[in-house]
Amino acid sequence: MPHPLAQARLTERRGASSGPRRISVLGSTGSIGVNTLDVVRHSAEPAEVVALTGMGNVELLASQAREFKAEIAVTADPARYSDLKEALSGSGVDVAAGPRALEEAASLPADWVMAGIVGIAGLAPTLAAARTGATIALANKECLVCAGEYFLAECSRSGAQIIPVDSEHNAIFQVFESRHHDAIERIILTASGGPFRTWTLEEMAGVTPQSAADHPNWSMGLKISIDSASMFNKALEMIEAQHLFDLPPEAIEVIVHPQSVVHSMVGYADGSVLAQLGSPDMRTAIGYAFAWPHRAHVPVDRLDFAELARLDFEPPDENRFPALRLAREAMTTGGTAGAILNGAKEAALDAFIEGRCGFLDIADIVESTLQTRSNASDANSMEAIIEADRIARTYATEWINRPGKVASA
Amino acid sequence: MPHPLAQARLTERRGASSGPRRISVLGSTGSIGVNTLDVVRHSAEPAEVVALTGMGNVELLASQAREFKAEIAVTADPARYSDLKEALSGSGVDVAAGPRALEEAASLPADWVMAGIVGIAGLAPTLAAARTGATIALANKECLVCAGEYFLAECSRSGAQIIPVDSEHNAIFQVFESRHHDAIERIILTASGGPFRTWTLEEMAGVTPQSAADHPNWSMGLKISIDSASMFNKALEMIEAQHLFDLPPEAIEVIVHPQSVVHSMVGYADGSVLAQLGSPDMRTAIGYAFAWPHRAHVPVDRLDFAELARLDFEPPDENRFPALRLAREAMTTGGTAGAILNGAKEAALDAFIEGRCGFLDIADIVESTLQTRSNASDANSMEAIIEADRIARTYATEWINRPGKVASA
Repeated sequence: MPHPLAQARLTERRGASSGPRRISVLGSTGSIGVNTLDVVRHSAEPAEVVALTGMGNVELLASQAREFKAEIAVTADPARYSDLKEALSGSGVDVAAGPRALEEAASLPADWVMAGIVGIAGLAPTLAAARTGATIALANKECLVCAGEYFLAECSRSGAQIIPVDSEHNAIFQVFESRHHDAIERIILTASGGPFRTWTLEEMAGVTPQSAADHPNWSMGLKISIDSASMFNKALEMIEAQHLFDLPPEAIEVIVHPQSVVHSMVGYADGSVLAQLGSPDMRTAIGYAFAWPHRAHVPVDRLDFAELARLDFEPPDENRFPALRLAREAMTTGGTAGAILNGAKEAALDAFIEGRCGFLDIADIVESTLQTRSNASDANSMEAIIEADRIARTYATEWINRPGKVASA
Repeated sequence: MPHPLAQARLTERRGASSGPRRISVLGSTGSIGVNTLDVVRHSAEPAEVVALTGMGNVELLASQAREFKAEIAVTADPARYSDLKEALSGSGVDVAAGPRALEEAASLPADWVMAGIVGIAGLAPTLAAARTGATIALANKECLVCAGEYFLAECSRSGAQIIPVDSEHNAIFQVFESRHHDAIERIILTASGGPFRTWTLEEMAGVTPQSAADHPNWSMGLKISIDSASMFNKALEMIEAQHLFDLPPEAIEVIVHPQSVVHSMVGYADGSVLAQLGSPDMRTAIGYAFAWPHRAHVPVDRLDFAELARLDFEPPDENRFPALRLAREAMTTGGTAGAILNGAKEAALDAFIEGRCGFLDIADIVESTLQTRSNASDANSMEAIIEADRIARTYATEWINRPGKVASA
């Protein structure tokens, strides 16, 4: 079966000439979802919205569903069903709630689905959408980090095509010549370095969730901002890239680039390095994914190189940011190691946000979990992946709760 | 008829599976030619060398012809015929001399031809090669600057495909999505800024050919180095780009980038800017052109971004470097204006090298020639182009020789 990415570059979008595209946005009230609907709003190409899904912000979800005349709006939280139902009364929009309804909405026939749900919660609905054979604009990281092989196999089976939406992977996708896969020597993920790029380990030991969430370039959610500060965001992206671009761990490099203008690069056997650059605005990557295989206008700021004046690069410091080393270990182990790394990181992140552990503990927790709980067992079923995630969270939580450790928080 | 560049991205190389490719190198003893043969020497793909052509360096030409078992070696200088004949006696290599023989050698059936002859002298042989329908690795600037429309029409007629070899145009070609031509907003040519990037006009008034030839990044011939110092090199590249990529003058930008690592960029309607980067080594572009439509290994230094540390950009100063403004004027005028600009520039460059005018006079000469001699007459025959070149050189020479002007040299 062809790799879903390789086939993505070679085939034309189906049904492009037969009426408006039918699209769904999973996670429409989050940062990715709101930007996606903004791209749809400004697009010259008409689209019919099938499903919009959200979590707690039912007011925004209802307002989006009315504006885009969605067929169905779903909140993942069953307790918010009646609020959503009320907010959409008389609109003609169907309403549903709960994880099961979310998966069903994701399964509705659509040409293009934005997978914008954050975290492991996005895995099941994205998988459901992928199994319909829709083009998947993939913003969720966990589908690849935790379930890479399984997710890609399901996409190959259904014919679903993946267009990555993470700015880094989208950049690579734009300059990744699948037809020359053998001539690709490396991909170079750029990293802003986060707010603690120049801090010492001592300084980093005392950071709070608020200071960690202060990303220098991108406006993002709290968890992703903290992951960026610890560079676990980049660790997840390395594992994603391994699956998405079908490359060995040693071909995946990271370079710190504080301005976040070069979104990532691909190095070829003839010495060429191809790069995608842009303003730090998610709408470029979303707009690319929405227009693909064409290119359309997106109302973002254009780069002005005279104004930028300079672009800086420096090697990442794996002593202060062990996340990158841990990602390489997980990539080398393979199997469920990605799910283990991610589960431990999620548990540690929650604990850090709740004040139950310190910032530097996050990497310690992940490292300890990887060392004691990871093995190369196949990640070839949802059950295996969910179980690895559960094992990692349990171990990490025990580590956090062990006597005498709380003091470091 | 399709544009030769657009068709280049869509069709596969003909005859790739039927025995070794037959190649010719026009200008094999120059900088481009020597690097081309180095790429061929290190290529895993076998190639049969049809013709090698050179000028005065018959010893090198003979040595190349022996090494690569060329079918024919041609010196453009009839006076060197017997020297070349003697140097190749017993080798089995045919020998010829003179401009007519050069064109005939360029017309010999080949799959791939490197057009590496510098200056207007390269126009006729490159045109001869293009008329055979061969893939043309284009390093000669004048085919496009002086004869853009005519040259491209001849390529379309024969089915010849152009792969640009200038590092800037090759960079653009690598990230130029012909299928999305309508979504291309601009191309951004990078310029090193040359040795006088930070000099004042007063300082520039006194420069010598030797100081002007001292290029900071690339090892090149004397004339191209001086053109780089005056930024007339970039002016010619702007005109080349206009024809090659079929874009209006206002879509062609120039940015000064002293490190010469970003070789050029393409800006798209979704805000994406795609770039090709590499070490300043011509073999990457030549290797790309040689392997196209594949990618092959080329033994050049890989970029190390941590070591590079920074990339700088600044707007070009058109007061100190009027060449860019003059290029825009020539592009807007169209027709034979490119040939006029180039002819005047060549005459002024010769005068500067021979001490008959000053460095800053080069731009004054070109500007005066453009203003008084350019018109939008069609550049649709070799005769029209040669005549425009002659008119420009004549006018420029009169300007240089006019009484009272020599003093400024």
